Parts: sequence; C-alpha cells; structure tokens
Amino acid sequence: MDDDEGSRLKEEQQPGTPAVLAASTGLLTDHYEFTMLDAALADGSASRPVAFEAFARDLPDGSGFGVMGGTARLVEAIGDFRFGERELHHLAEIVSPPTLEWLAGYRFGGTITAYPEGELWWPESPLLTVRGTFGECVLLETLVLSILNHGCAIATRAARITGAAGGTAVIEMGSRRCHEAAAVEAARLAWVAGFAATSNVEAGHRYRVPTSGTAAHAWTMVHDDELDAFRAQVATLGAGTTLLVDTYDIAGGIERAVTAAREAGADGPGAIRIDSGDLGAEATKARRQLDALGAGSAKVTVSGDLDVAAIEALVASGAPIDGFGVGTQLVAAPPVGVIYKLVAVGSGTGDDALRAVAKRSAHKASAGGVKRAWRVSGSGSDVVLGADHPGPLGSREVAVTVIDRGRPAADLLDPAAATVAARRRFQASLAELTGARS
Amino acid sequence: MDDDEGSRLKEEQQPGTPAVLAASTGLLTDHYEFTMLDAALADGSASRPVAFEAFARDLPDGSGFGVMGGTARLVEAIGDFRFGERELHHLAEIVSPPTLEWLAGYRFGGTITAYPEGELWWPESPLLTVRGTFGECVLLETLVLSILNHGCAIATRAARITGAAGGTAVIEMGSRRCHEAAAVEAARLAWVAGFAATSNVEAGHRYRVPTSGTAAHAWTMVHDDELDAFRAQVATLGAGTTLLVDTYDIAGGIERAVTAAREAGADGPGAIRIDSGDLGAEATKARRQLDALGAGSAKVTVSGDLDVAAIEALVASGAPIDGFGVGTQLVAAPPVGVIYKLVAVGSGTGDDALRAVAKRSAHKASAGGVKRAWRVSGSGSDVVLGADHPGPLGSREVAVTVIDRGRPAADLLDPAAATVAARRRFQASLAELTGARS
Repeated sequence: MDDDEGSRLKEEQQPGTPAVLAASTGLLTDHYEFTMLDAALADGSASRPVAFEAFARDLPDGSGFGVMGGTARLVEAIGDFRFGERELHHLAEIVSPPTLEWLAGYRFGGTITAYPEGELWWPESPLLTVRGTFGECVLLETLVLSILNHGCAIATRAARITGAAGGTAVIEMGSRRCHEAAAVEAARLAWVAGFAATSNVEAGHRYRVPTSGTAAHAWTMVHDDELDAFRAQVATLGAGTTLLVDTYDIAGGIERAVTAAREAGADGPGAIRIDSGDLGAEATKARRQLDALGAGSAKVTVSGDLDVAAIEALVASGAPIDGFGVGTQLVAAPPVGVIYKLVAVGSGTGDDALRAVAKRSAHKASAGGVKRAWRVSGSGSDVVLGADHPGPLGSREVAVTVIDRGRPAADLLDPAAATVAARRRFQASLAELTGARS
Repeated sequence: MDDDEGSRLKEEQQPGTPAVLAASTGLLTDHYEFTMLDAALADGSASRPVAFEAFARDLPDGSGFGVMGGTARLVEAIGDFRFGERELHHLAEIVSPPTLEWLAGYRFGGTITAYPEGELWWPESPLLTVRGTFGECVLLETLVLSILNHGCAIATRAARITGAAGGTAVIEMGSRRCHEAAAVEAARLAWVAGFAATSNVEAGHRYRVPTSGTAAHAWTMVHDDELDAFRAQVATLGAGTTLLVDTYDIAGGIERAVTAAREAGADGPGAIRIDSGDLGAEATKARRQLDALGAGSAKVTVSGDLDVAAIEALVASGAPIDGFGVGTQLVAAPPVGVIYKLVAVGSGTGDDALRAVAKRSAHKASAGGVKRAWRVSGSGSDVVLGADHPGPLGSREVAVTVIDRGRPAADLLDPAAATVAARRRFQASLAELTGARS
C-alpha cells in the first residue's frame, strides 16, 4: 500500500463520513504548487478569487467519446487534503514559515462543479470547474489531474471494450498488470462502463463490484493429473464452475472437464475457459466438442491479451464466445490528457467579478472564462457556453455541484452507492447519445 | 488514497519495522486465488511444497534490457498480506469456514529470491522465485505481479529515457498523468533509473527522492502582468529559480525573465523553461537570446509530451538544452508482461524434493524447474541454469534472498535506503553491461 508509513491525520468525524483514520493526500502534489503558493502568499495573489477548469483537448484514437471517471473519489481525496505534522515537517524544506502556518489550517472552502462519473464527454468539455482563492485552488492541480486522468482513461477505454463486445459479458482481470492501487480503481471503473464483473477482491469489498474467477493453470499443474484437478475444483466450487482447459491440450481438457462435471451429476461444467491460441478457432472447436459431448449448456469463455480490435474481430466472425476476459488492454489504457487551467481571475479587492484569462502560446492556446456545458439528446458533443448564457432549448446541464463552499454533495459520500449510480448514468448517457431507450 | 476505509490490522511491532498502523494487502488479490485455495485445502494440495517463478517472455519494443523495480516494496507488501476482521468478513462470501480459519492465521512462511531493484534483466530471467506450500504461494500471484509489472515497466522505460538523454538531466513530472499512488512509485523508480529529480512531493518525503519545480502557467496568468509574476517568483524563490517563459510569447517572456533576475542583482535567472512549440528550435533561439542579453549562465529546460524518440532527436540535433521534463511518456510506460508460473511441485508426503512442471499449451509453453541466473560482465543476457548447476566461471549470481522462511532481509526494511541502493545498483549493472567503469 502506498501510505503505510509516517504519522497520519486523525479525521474529525463529520456527518455522513465514517470515523476512520484517513491518510493525508496533501503531499500527492507537485513541488511547484507549493513554491507557487509560497510566492502567492508573499505577494498577495493567493487571495485572488479564481476559477480553474479541467478539460481534455482530444480523445484517444478511435474513441468517439470520453467517459468521466473519478468524480466521487476526487471529492473524498480533497476532503483528505490536509497538512498534519508529517506533511508540515517535510514541507518546511520547501516553503517559508508563514506558508507552513497557512497550510496547517488548510481546508478547501471553494466550490466545484463536475461531470458526474459515468457521464460521456468530448474535447473541450469542462469536466471540472474549481472556484475559490488562487491559493486554495492552485494546490489541487496534481490531485485533480491524477484522479481524473486515471479515471477518465480507464472508463473511456472500458466503454470501448464493452462497445466492441456488444452484448457479450466482459470480465475485468487486469489487476496483475498495473499498480495495486490503480488496479482497484480500474476494476471499479470497468464495472461503471459496462463490464460484468472483476477479478479484484478489494474492489468487490470496497465498492460492491461483483467479483468472479475460478482457477489458474497452476491449479491444474499442482495436481498429478488434470482430471484430478477438475474433480477437486468441482467438489469445492460445484459443477457450475468454469474450468480452464488449455494447460496441456484443449480437446483433452474439454473431455476431462465434461467428465468431472458429469461425475458430479451435471451435463457439463458451467463454462470452460481458453487462455491461449487462436481464440476464435479454439472457441468454435470447443463449442462443437461440448455440444457433441451433450454439454450444450456449458459456456465458452476466452482470455489472453484481448484488445478492442481482437474483440471486434471475434464478435464479427460470429465465434461462439459467451464471455471475454480483459486485462492489460484495459489497465494500460491510452492517456486522455486532461489538463487543469486557470480560466478566470478576480481583482482580489473585494469585487468578486472574474475576468477571463487564457494562455496565448502559439501551440497550446486555451479558451478563457468560466463555462457551462449543455447536452442535447442524440448530439455527439456538448454545447459549451459562457457561464451566464442560458442553455439551448431542450438541453440539460451536464455538470453538477460536487463541493459547495467546502461541503461535499451528500450523494457522493458512500463510494459503493456512488459507483452504482455511475454505472446507471453511463448506460443512460449512452442511450441518450444513440437515441436508444435504455 | 486507496485504503482509507474499513478497519485496519494492527501490526505487531517487529524488530526493524516501525510501529505504525498498516493496511492489509490481503484483498489486493484475484478472486480465483481464493477459490483455488479453498479447493486446495479441501483436497490436500494446499500443503504441497512448490516453487513459483516470475519472469517476462519479452521486452518492450526498443528496450535492450529490462530494469527490476519493486523488490523491497513487494517484500513489505507481503509482510502486510494478512487477513483481519475486515478481510475475513468479506471473504466469507467466497470461501468456506475452514479456509477462513486458515486465512486468519496466514503469514507467508516461505522463501523468496529476487533480482534486487535496479538490476538489469532479459526475457526468461527468473526475476522472482517463491518457495513454500502451494496454499501460501498461490495467494500471492496478483500482489507479486501488480508490484513487479508496474515497477519493471516504469524502471525499464525510465532507463530508456535517461539513456536517450545522455548526460542531460531529466526531471520526472508525470504524477498528474496516472493514479496518485502509482505516481509516487513512478517518481521513485525514475530516480532509481537515473532521473535527476521528481516533482512528486510524497516521493520526496517517503523515499528522499530530490524534488524540484517552480511555477506553472497559472502563476503568470494570475498576475496582471508577466513581469510582475516573475518579480514575485524571484522575490520568494531567489534569482536562481526557473522561470516559465511560454505563457504569452517566448521572446518577450525571456526578456522579462532576465529583467526580473537583474532587478534582484543577478545576470539572469537560474533557468528558463519552455513547455510548448518546436522545442529544439525554441531552445536554440532562447539560448541565443539569453547569451545576447548577457545571461549566459541561465539554463534552458524544456518539457511537453517528450518521448524517447523526441529526446533522442533533440540530443542528436545538438540543441542547447540543459534539462528535460518528462511525464506522460514515463508513467504510461508500455507493459512488460511479467507472469507468475508454477515451475516445480513436491509430493507433499514428507519428501521435499520438487519435480519440474510446465504448461504445454501449443502457444505459451513455459520452462519448468527452479532456476538460478548468472551474470557475466559485458554479456547482454543472463545465463539461466537449473538450481543445482554451478554458475559459469567468472559470473556472479544475480538474485538474492529477500525473504528467508518468512523473514525479510534486513537491508530492505528502510524504503529510502533501499531506494538509494537500487539507484547505485542500476548504475553499476549498466556499467557492467557496457564494460564501462562507473
């Protein structure tokens, strides 16, 4: 785990949050945010009212839309963005004593609107708008971007995978291919974007994502005989289990799988899994063999470095596949490039009006000003307007307030419930896009 | 953070480990490991002596070698692989009561040899060998692979980046582009593989990796005038600071940067940073302008989606660049595909001799048996032999014992010291490869 050292901040109990020890997220921050704060407190710009916006300039190749991921987790992480003894002791190497004192009292007291998790988005969609003082908002850049870039990359890739699979179930099994904390989040977001289950047990515990899995090649190999391995698996997990049949030779494995299930009184196993070879050809042979053996109800599932193109090809070929297992190609999702830009600044002299600001470098210009996004059913993009403009007729506003003057929205406080809501929102937003009724 | 909910296991204080509350890593595990354990306890195979091996079949495209990452962190995570009330309550949904009882007493009691962090490796190098009972070893698959796949992918990519940069300093700034816990580890491993510093403050605190950074575009934009922003930065951080000059126009930014530094009594700023445009051309213009302004000591640093090819091209072009900032292209490192395979099994009847086992599927055959790896100076691969074979004349054994019958090696218990050792080992192993003297 990533935070098992050093002292911890003791959370005050707040309504709706559990009384647990929480780690501070305060040092999950780039060095330059602290040096900017230090200079901003010295010259007074720390107290200027500002707005920052998080958005992406592009979508990953081949994606028609992005999917928002991480909204509730970010709100929780901002609640843990505090500076206790451990953090301040370290920061004394970087900032001046007045800045340390300011950090000791830090609580984000501004307002954040955000696309809810599971919502679709497009380039320039204002995914997150953070309003507060420059000092309190500039510090959040890295935390915001870490959580949204990871969350949006995974959710966007997961949606492409479930889209490619059509109605066929997809199981997430990428935990072994990424950092163990990122794995839990990837498992959660895969489920948000339509996966049927995950292998990751921590995600099952923390977010109530359904988990599944039965056996690895090692299970067969630790037995002297494959049939013994299958018999033992059926004895413990029942004949409805999924038997992995490609440790030695697939046809022999299928025959033994049916034998083991039949000895337990079933027509065949619940499913077989093939993890190597030409998956389409092997699935077709397996289906034929299972049917010939009278195990027509046994499902055929496949795994093994499946990517979007491979799944599309298998679905298009009509191969008789009842389930895909996907790992690496989900967790190694291409980056989405969400950035956090200052879009408006006030004078800081008591007048709260903000004027738009924008970077003007030749190659990376940004649009200034606080914006709001509106969605028209069936439209493949958002209508993004200045904050004072009304939305188009028949549109809905996409972003919601997730932190209101420091207070998190109540519906985000239960991570498991927020995850269920995100999964529903993804389906609804997708149906709205395609004009289908969900 | 990823573990701020639920109950925690209270660690017993052990010699050499700090008395802190540690989170359990027990559920960072794939569902099928628990179902295999359940079946293995039922049929007796859980107590068979076995050996598992972690290795990769290939290297990422363009890498001449892999770099080991995560060894000490894995040893620590295995120490936290325990099952307390929180974990057992959840696992009651998955396994039988006798298995729950077995898990309540779980402590890894086997022996692990591993490539030390920073060590080079090649396809088929036995990166990790885990010996113990099938029950205790099979459970570790996901934890082992999450940590080693992330660690080796990042360290291997970091080595390519520092190799491309030649002697020019590289700063890690990818935290915003990946999960916040993965970011800390990426920052640490970049330093192991030769980066000069990181932006990630948590890595600075936890592992004593040098951190750096000064200001973002938002710093310039929150001021009404770029010169005011630079003056304020110099006032707080000194004239040796790095000024980001591409918010509006680069030539104007450089002029104002020199003005602000000169007002503080220096010839020019410590450095300027350019984050957009044709970095080679802009660096050349900037160098010329700085020299013409009498700021010849000001360094020129560049950043902005730099990948290996871009760095190689900039170095080859002779562009006057004193430092590279690299983010996305480090943290989105290509996967290395480390797998965890059962390679030997004993009878479990009192005879501790292991026989080699291997998967025989047509497409993914594995070499069975416990192996040892030997390194001959200057050789671009390891000599991998059966465990009973002596090594070639003049070779050294690569792997070391990191857990001996459940006890972690003392030199891995201090994460910061282990990281420093890994950084030295990387340089030494690289020098050994190229025949250079470090």
